[in-house]
Amino acid sequence: MSRLRVALDVMGGDGAPGVPIEGARAAAAESDPELQLLLVGDPASVRAELNPLPEGFRLLPAGETIEPDESPALAVRRKPRSSIVVGLEALRAGEADAFVSAGPTGAVMAASLLVLRALPGVDRPTVAAPFPTSRGPMLVLDAGANVNSRPHHLHQFARLGTIYSRDLFAIERPRVGLLNVGEEEEKGDDLAVATHRLLREDTTLNFVGNVEGHRIIEGVCDVLVCDGFVGNVLLKFYESMAGFVLGVLTKQFAGAHDELAEIFQFLDYTEYGGAPLLGVAGVSIVCHGSSPPRAIKNAILTAIDAVRSGLVDEMARDLEALSTAGSA
Amino acid sequence: MSRLRVALDVMGGDGAPGVPIEGARAAAAESDPELQLLLVGDPASVRAELNPLPEGFRLLPAGETIEPDESPALAVRRKPRSSIVVGLEALRAGEADAFVSAGPTGAVMAASLLVLRALPGVDRPTVAAPFPTSRGPMLVLDAGANVNSRPHHLHQFARLGTIYSRDLFAIERPRVGLLNVGEEEEKGDDLAVATHRLLREDTTLNFVGNVEGHRIIEGVCDVLVCDGFVGNVLLKFYESMAGFVLGVLTKQFAGAHDELAEIFQFLDYTEYGGAPLLGVAGVSIVCHGSSPPRAIKNAILTAIDAVRSGLVDEMARDLEALSTAGSA
Repeated sequence: MSRLRVALDVMGGDGAPGVPIEGARAAAAESDPELQLLLVGDPASVRAELNPLPEGFRLLPAGETIEPDESPALAVRRKPRSSIVVGLEALRAGEADAFVSAGPTGAVMAASLLVLRALPGVDRPTVAAPFPTSRGPMLVLDAGANVNSRPHHLHQFARLGTIYSRDLFAIERPRVGLLNVGEEEEKGDDLAVATHRLLREDTTLNFVGNVEGHRIIEGVCDVLVCDGFVGNVLLKFYESMAGFVLGVLTKQFAGAHDELAEIFQFLDYTEYGGAPLLGVAGVSIVCHGSSPPRAIKNAILTAIDAVRSGLVDEMARDLEALSTAGSA
Repeated sequence: MSRLRVALDVMGGDGAPGVPIEGARAAAAESDPELQLLLVGDPASVRAELNPLPEGFRLLPAGETIEPDESPALAVRRKPRSSIVVGLEALRAGEADAFVSAGPTGAVMAASLLVLRALPGVDRPTVAAPFPTSRGPMLVLDAGANVNSRPHHLHQFARLGTIYSRDLFAIERPRVGLLNVGEEEEKGDDLAVATHRLLREDTTLNFVGNVEGHRIIEGVCDVLVCDGFVGNVLLKFYESMAGFVLGVLTKQFAGAHDELAEIFQFLDYTEYGGAPLLGVAGVSIVCHGSSPPRAIKNAILTAIDAVRSGLVDEMARDLEALSTAGSA
């Protein structure tokens, strides 16, 4: 296989550019020597952190940065030289195989859609967040605030999540659940009731039914679909609560730090690194703005796995088939 | 003041009738001697637990029980002798001042609506769940799965929650937040955007704007309004996660049990006892099915406070004024 190239936005995230660069170095140290890292960002800032560039690193100059308080849709149009847009254009042009950013999620999503475009058959690309559970990661999508979703959007999320979960988490028949307020099929709002029917009738899916809030932590499914409103609220609540609990414990039981860290390791989202943007024509992974280097490193390693698995082509074929079947 | 009478459904909850009866005895021991408890349920079952009845206790026979797997709307019609319906009818007839049940939430809600009726100006009564936060309880409503809500429903929830929070938690100007996926007013789904406008324009409310998922645990508002779909998912997830974390810790750090219990006491929902059903013509409080006696006791004490505060009359006046203003 030819050298695998990951474009990394070094201007994104709270600790930019130091943290992303440190994550890149950790990924390079941990992955095979064939990895090439394209650091996308302001040349002077990058050189201040890393000079000269180590073997396997290249600089892709991008003079602008999209800030968290900007409107994503406007910012990606107004800042064509931003690290997010430049990195994604390198991916589209075939100069990179994947893109990773800890920049604002909305901007990465808007730019990925604008630059890479949605796959045929995908109406709304989605951010899939790996939720830590006591049985491993559960992919929750949409977690990127695709609001006012329609049932066929959630159906597409189920298909996309199934392929991702199979390819990246090596689960042969990922169990798909529908987030809902009750187990019975007639439970929920209009969206949930109609989506339940679509998922149940799709024999390509391993649909296990409705999943209530208290079953999430048990890991009762591998892929959990929902509208982005509830997905986003849940994700942010979860992260804050996990962080809060760990913070309190670490302070009170400093002596037991290692033991605590081990017990609650599964609560640590940095374990999974980033959330893939699914349904666009390329591997695009968005990390939390407060990602430490370890999370950036894991996102880069995830990006490599995603490219190697060929999941984008699989998704394109699968979703196009679904869309053709739907219109037949 | 005349003797205050609380009707308690002793057939509801996982540990019925022993647990509710134990909770009732604890409430009687802790509250003033003027409390009268009407134990609503099967006479033989009650006598097997408590014979003779202590001073201040009375039995209200009810031969049927509504089970968690029954359709709430059907069950309350088919079982007019159920403890839930009989208890609420005693409240409506003026034989009791409040009703407390750990029976199925949906059934308590449906029966409260059927028997007590909604207050004038209230389109949809709502279950308000006290969420533990690091700054005390935050009232989240709707948490009772009122799905497909419209903006004016959430507006009414904000008014109801404000009165409850003021009267029961002694907060002079409760801060009202709107659960959302971003802080800016234009963020969110159609429901959130339209509700934001209604709340902002209502000068009787102390509206503090949108609240994202990660701010919940910080207790950034006193009353958080949302559709019942997300409220229900969030509540169930929260309870399961708090229980999970405490369970793991208690097992691993048995020696530090008391210290842990103190640190995480605020995560313990039994502290607050029950969730009031707001917007019906009476004080009706629903407890978790797995409530221990302590939670039942706290729900009874909450019911007493609610009756003494006169909040039902306040809510009736306030919501009627809102509805008149809206149609003017």
